[in-house]
Amino acid sequence: MAPFWKVITREEAEQLYADIKPLESERVHIQYCLDRVLGEDIISEVDVPHFPRSNMDGYAVRAEDTYGASESSPITLKIVGKVDMGKVADLSISPGEVAHIATGGMLPEGADAMVMVEYTEAPENDRVAIKRAVAPGEHIVSIGEDIKRGQLLLKKGNRLRAQDIGVLAAVGVTEVAVHRRPRVGILSTGDEIVPPEVEPKPGQVRGTNIYTLSALTVKFGGEPIDFGIVRDEFETLKEKIAAAIQSCDIVAISGGSSVGTQDITLCVIKSFEAKGILAHGVAIRPGKPTIQALVSGKPVIGLPGHPVSAAVVYGLLVKPIIYRLTGASENLSEQAAIRARLSQNVPSPSGREDYVRVTLRREGDLWWADPIFGKSGAITTLTKADGLVKIDLELEGLEEGQWVEVKPF
Amino acid sequence: MAPFWKVITREEAEQLYADIKPLESERVHIQYCLDRVLGEDIISEVDVPHFPRSNMDGYAVRAEDTYGASESSPITLKIVGKVDMGKVADLSISPGEVAHIATGGMLPEGADAMVMVEYTEAPENDRVAIKRAVAPGEHIVSIGEDIKRGQLLLKKGNRLRAQDIGVLAAVGVTEVAVHRRPRVGILSTGDEIVPPEVEPKPGQVRGTNIYTLSALTVKFGGEPIDFGIVRDEFETLKEKIAAAIQSCDIVAISGGSSVGTQDITLCVIKSFEAKGILAHGVAIRPGKPTIQALVSGKPVIGLPGHPVSAAVVYGLLVKPIIYRLTGASENLSEQAAIRARLSQNVPSPSGREDYVRVTLRREGDLWWADPIFGKSGAITTLTKADGLVKIDLELEGLEEGQWVEVKPF
Repeated sequence: MAPFWKVITREEAEQLYADIKPLESERVHIQYCLDRVLGEDIISEVDVPHFPRSNMDGYAVRAEDTYGASESSPITLKIVGKVDMGKVADLSISPGEVAHIATGGMLPEGADAMVMVEYTEAPENDRVAIKRAVAPGEHIVSIGEDIKRGQLLLKKGNRLRAQDIGVLAAVGVTEVAVHRRPRVGILSTGDEIVPPEVEPKPGQVRGTNIYTLSALTVKFGGEPIDFGIVRDEFETLKEKIAAAIQSCDIVAISGGSSVGTQDITLCVIKSFEAKGILAHGVAIRPGKPTIQALVSGKPVIGLPGHPVSAAVVYGLLVKPIIYRLTGASENLSEQAAIRARLSQNVPSPSGREDYVRVTLRREGDLWWADPIFGKSGAITTLTKADGLVKIDLELEGLEEGQWVEVKPF
Repeated sequence: MAPFWKVITREEAEQLYADIKPLESERVHIQYCLDRVLGEDIISEVDVPHFPRSNMDGYAVRAEDTYGASESSPITLKIVGKVDMGKVADLSISPGEVAHIATGGMLPEGADAMVMVEYTEAPENDRVAIKRAVAPGEHIVSIGEDIKRGQLLLKKGNRLRAQDIGVLAAVGVTEVAVHRRPRVGILSTGDEIVPPEVEPKPGQVRGTNIYTLSALTVKFGGEPIDFGIVRDEFETLKEKIAAAIQSCDIVAISGGSSVGTQDITLCVIKSFEAKGILAHGVAIRPGKPTIQALVSGKPVIGLPGHPVSAAVVYGLLVKPIIYRLTGASENLSEQAAIRARLSQNVPSPSGREDYVRVTLRREGDLWWADPIFGKSGAITTLTKADGLVKIDLELEGLEEGQWVEVKPF
């Protein structure tokens, strides 16, 4: 360990990479843009609609011709034609005249409102009885009413959702600039770790972190690059980390759980740049011994080897870096949580943020959060967990019955 | 329209497809299994760990040798060796003896607890002073303590999260059976619709639904198949829908917004199977005119043409079908919401579920939800929206200041 390093808070830890700039953009067809982050503002070059459009099935009218019309005294007007869907309205409406249009059809010259078919009688010959007055503009969508030419539609930094892709299609933008996905080099150290397909001998265990962290990387919008399991040996580790730094945008090293591993990782990182280490130790549990560094301007993170700690720290500290590199602005959907009542007291020393794994249990309309107490090495506590509950730095724990916000995990 | 159809509730609509069976499974490497749904129970064939393991850096001891040890009167024991990481502990501990082990190392024969290095003096020659007593089992992970051979680890129907993939790696399972992703054939009808890359003439608009619904399909775990924009003409539409039914597991038809479209879609679906139509009309807004059918045992959904309605209905009615076909059990993370206070009254007739688009605004610690009022044809109301607020069937609206749950959208 390195006792000369001050333990910092999670917020301070996040700030260490505040100056990191988003990666360059690439042009991608909107079909492949779900969850990608816009690298440009999208300003519409067109009006939508670009013609006055009916918003109902019925008759295009001059509103003033309907004034006074009612159920008991309908006004009869002359049908001069029908507007075909997808066609120019090649007729015009003079006083006393109407034209038949379906929803989405083009409003003919002279008309300024629609009367819904529900408020008319069945037409007789070329005449229809209108049973309700309409105001000018009623049931029509005017030019540019949905989108105006020159309007800012989507901002640089927006993470594209399904509906955002729809709006791009609406204005004819089929290719956009999105920030490149950060490549995250992931390696795992520890002489006791073997790949999952290998039968471990006594003293050996199957490594799980590369799989878990790679899946999290995909979830957070990065591209995981597997640098494999590396022996706890200075030169070997240095070579692998150097290769990862060269070809990736972020490097995440999950320590073996041996005492030497963190030290070797620390020494290797220092050997690249004397001032490379930004912090060693974050006031969170699990995850305290995390190393944060910057080598050749690229974030290098030394994660604890315990599967639970590694996964929690990855979400807390590496995810924000991935977001920064993708240029993403705040993701509101991450604020979503399940409100539940805690079924047991959970102690926590003040001065440390605790992330408690909980399972959720429904009782009628109420959710209960049952804390999972288990060693941070026990990977099953993660698979049993439905989510995490944060205990703030200044709190000394949470009380039974208290309302908590459970973030799905 | 079809006035002879009774309008059903959303819950009734969801029940129409309750008998649909999950699709067959395929075997996939765990590296590609994020968010896939397990088609088998996973039972561990191994113990994890499969040897007694140290959970701390320090000394493996016989607990009874430490009884009575304290800061003021330490007990000195003999160091008989060191266990290398990843190796069999090829020594054994007799009374009065200890061995040095790092976290994750194998406990030697004879030892039954660990003393953390923090509670020892620096060793002198081959002797170490222990300053705290430990109980048997302390700081060790026994065989099978994390995972027992024969233990049910993950259930059929589980949607695999990053940590679940980790646990599969931990027990040496690198390939699992997951349900095939449902193929959703998506087509859009309407004579006024042109593809986004085409410059629309007056009377024409760019189609957005295929893009939005395809992206939603990916999000919900399906595979979208684009059947393009189809003219409102019986034979053409029938041919396309038949092709989609044949090659897909679900067919979603987004109606043009013309009055005729829904009727033609209805007639085409009926022409396959007289009793194919299960419902026409759901008590939701937006989305009332939705058609639900079953042709050759496959769900066929006629969605409204308005972009907002199509997207909302897709999430409410098609997503549950995609989930059923993937065999997914309840997804707790979908219960997550942002609690906010409504900034305005929102009226809603009783007897209809309303889905109100809102934007979120933060004021200190508080979120305010601002309802977006707009025509359901206006696609920008969807891009402005941060989420949806549901107004229950029996309510007559929501009041200003009321707490609501906003589901990110």
